[in-house]
Amino acid sequence: MISPEIERLIQILARMPGLGPRSARRMVLHLLRRREQALVPLTKALQEAQEKIVTCSLCHSIDTCNPCSICRDAGRDDTLLIVVEHVSDIWALERSQAIKGRYHVLGGVLSALDGVGPEQLAISSLLTRAAELSVREVLLALNATIDGQTTAHYLTTRLSSLPVKVTRLAHGVPVGGELDYLDEGTLSAAIRSRTVL
Amino acid sequence: MISPEIERLIQILARMPGLGPRSARRMVLHLLRRREQALVPLTKALQEAQEKIVTCSLCHSIDTCNPCSICRDAGRDDTLLIVVEHVSDIWALERSQAIKGRYHVLGGVLSALDGVGPEQLAISSLLTRAAELSVREVLLALNATIDGQTTAHYLTTRLSSLPVKVTRLAHGVPVGGELDYLDEGTLSAAIRSRTVL
Repeated sequence: MISPEIERLIQILARMPGLGPRSARRMVLHLLRRREQALVPLTKALQEAQEKIVTCSLCHSIDTCNPCSICRDAGRDDTLLIVVEHVSDIWALERSQAIKGRYHVLGGVLSALDGVGPEQLAISSLLTRAAELSVREVLLALNATIDGQTTAHYLTTRLSSLPVKVTRLAHGVPVGGELDYLDEGTLSAAIRSRTVL
Repeated sequence: MISPEIERLIQILARMPGLGPRSARRMVLHLLRRREQALVPLTKALQEAQEKIVTCSLCHSIDTCNPCSICRDAGRDDTLLIVVEHVSDIWALERSQAIKGRYHVLGGVLSALDGVGPEQLAISSLLTRAAELSVREVLLALNATIDGQTTAHYLTTRLSSLPVKVTRLAHGVPVGGELDYLDEGTLSAAIRSRTVL
């Protein structure tokens, strides 16, 4: 006896990552109970996103302009190209405010299990961009997962013919992390890369 | 360097029940990556909900018509009025397909801590409806929480002057439940209300 409009909304929300039928129902009731504070602003924001957000043809990030604001930004270091898996990784790196290079979104990682080969990723455009005269360093900021590391290894081989330095993020103890809770791999990496105080 | 449109969408989603900044970011990226399969249908469904869904003036449930389809349904038992806390409880009871009465949504429960008194709930309209000639039984299908039981007790007192039978849901072992994992309160209720096989 749920009206088809509500049922449809629940079904669509239940398909979102991290949500299921129960949390989707809760969300719909929250939205319908708080019409002016929740439902109207969400609808408007989604509509604006739908109309305005585009994929950057250079780095494959998303923004309201193409090229995106990072690719347009004159204050960025043109010698440094940072390769990430997803747009969310750009957001994470930008939150750290530790680096001011250009980005390149691969759109995933190589995965034999999921059938993702080099053609499915933005690798040829990466090679083109890395071959530009200005680029000196390509930082492979990929996840420290098996697929991420496989992809990093593959990219290193593909980039080896170019006159660029290929780097990756350091492995080690996360800031605030306790040694007791860390795996052996992380600990031995942290020991190998120990620094002088 | 996230565009303000995306930032706004993330902020709105992060305020939904069960979501936080991280899950909101994941959801926004999912929506923007799957524009036609996710973003467009969700926007449309929200817009339809915004335009069509209204609160039923009789039972305070939500539907696309007022009175709602349950209140209009001629096949329902007019002698039975089922009192619930929220609209989601109607949905849960309807899924069970065990009962075909009319509903009345209180909009919450009495709670001294949250400052919810009888005036904040749909109690006076419940008393009016329960006083109708056709009603023989009022089933208080409230949650088995302290606030729910306090509210049930309060409603029993208020309804005592009317010629209706006031009932509540049975306590006992949930179907599929293991005794070892149940609290003493549930177990002793299940023992007291044991039935002959």
